[in-house]
Amino acid sequence: MDPMNVHPVADKLLPRTEKERLLRQRGRVFWLYGLSGSGKSTLAAGLERRLLEAGVASVVLDGDNLRSGLNEDLGFENEDRRENLRRVAEVAKLFARSGLVTMVSFITPKEEFREAVLAIVGDDDFRDVYVKASYAACEERDVKGLYAKAQAGEIPDFTGKGSAFEEPAEPWLTIDTERATPEESLEQLFAAVLPLTELPG
Amino acid sequence: MDPMNVHPVADKLLPRTEKERLLRQRGRVFWLYGLSGSGKSTLAAGLERRLLEAGVASVVLDGDNLRSGLNEDLGFENEDRRENLRRVAEVAKLFARSGLVTMVSFITPKEEFREAVLAIVGDDDFRDVYVKASYAACEERDVKGLYAKAQAGEIPDFTGKGSAFEEPAEPWLTIDTERATPEESLEQLFAAVLPLTELPG
Repeated sequence: MDPMNVHPVADKLLPRTEKERLLRQRGRVFWLYGLSGSGKSTLAAGLERRLLEAGVASVVLDGDNLRSGLNEDLGFENEDRRENLRRVAEVAKLFARSGLVTMVSFITPKEEFREAVLAIVGDDDFRDVYVKASYAACEERDVKGLYAKAQAGEIPDFTGKGSAFEEPAEPWLTIDTERATPEESLEQLFAAVLPLTELPG
Repeated sequence: MDPMNVHPVADKLLPRTEKERLLRQRGRVFWLYGLSGSGKSTLAAGLERRLLEAGVASVVLDGDNLRSGLNEDLGFENEDRRENLRRVAEVAKLFARSGLVTMVSFITPKEEFREAVLAIVGDDDFRDVYVKASYAACEERDVKGLYAKAQAGEIPDFTGKGSAFEEPAEPWLTIDTERATPEESLEQLFAAVLPLTELPG
């Protein structure tokens, strides 16, 4: 590619609506965020299965998984975290525009980050899902043994401890995994998501 | 996300085969490469439409288009071009694993680059399509007015002139857009691609 050679060919490509008509579904981005251990990834994986059973094609973009591929060049400094997030949002946008229902699982601890990914994906497609559980509850679950390490001071910027998690002001949906069982949480999410994957008419 | 928090959840996610069964197609990556003006993007866009008409869901990742999103932070130095290519290959891999037929349109001038993207996508999914046209033919077409600029010395590293395009040794498919009409080229490509998008059995 050459410097002057940046001519978008988008006008030659199929309109998104034609892709969506073929798939009989509408592309969307559901952005699941919350503390480590709140249940984001489990919910995203569960939703993927429930959608499949309902005949809806979807994809999960998991912050952790992308670290071993697209984002393997990035570290954990602030600037790299921001770039990590930006790329995930750009990829989610590509998927949604291909007609796939896209679930992102990503701590996304600050309002500023949530606004940045919304700006990339766009209002029409983006829905934010706050996966809510207190630090104490996540610490007790400690699925990955991270909270013990954070408690021992081995992870200085652990979100919720050394590093703040900002509660969202008005999330599209809140799933409180501390009050509901995993099954209830998944059904609540699925019931909210499914209608938004349907084509109008 | 935290440094120790990189635990792939791939085992919780749906196996690719289940996604492909829902979509009734097999994910693949068709990598179209060749000189600027050889017809890559036009062929990719045409293939997208032919596949849609055949009921196959696909996506086009265009080197130029991605420059305005995922790769907007990258310039045209060697290292940035390499990173550009790496990211496109990683994204193509994500799409193929979601069951979509993925066309990439990217000059990819060196064997080394082609080998690098093959290594990322993997043998099973990756098929390389050499879109062949001589420098003279592309210069005569000069759809974007780039060859005139290169001739005037305004683009120092223009591929095929200041910067070499290495002919592939054994491409999976060669589409010679200099000898065939655009319609013939597209039909040749479509006929080769379609069977590979079908599920076995």
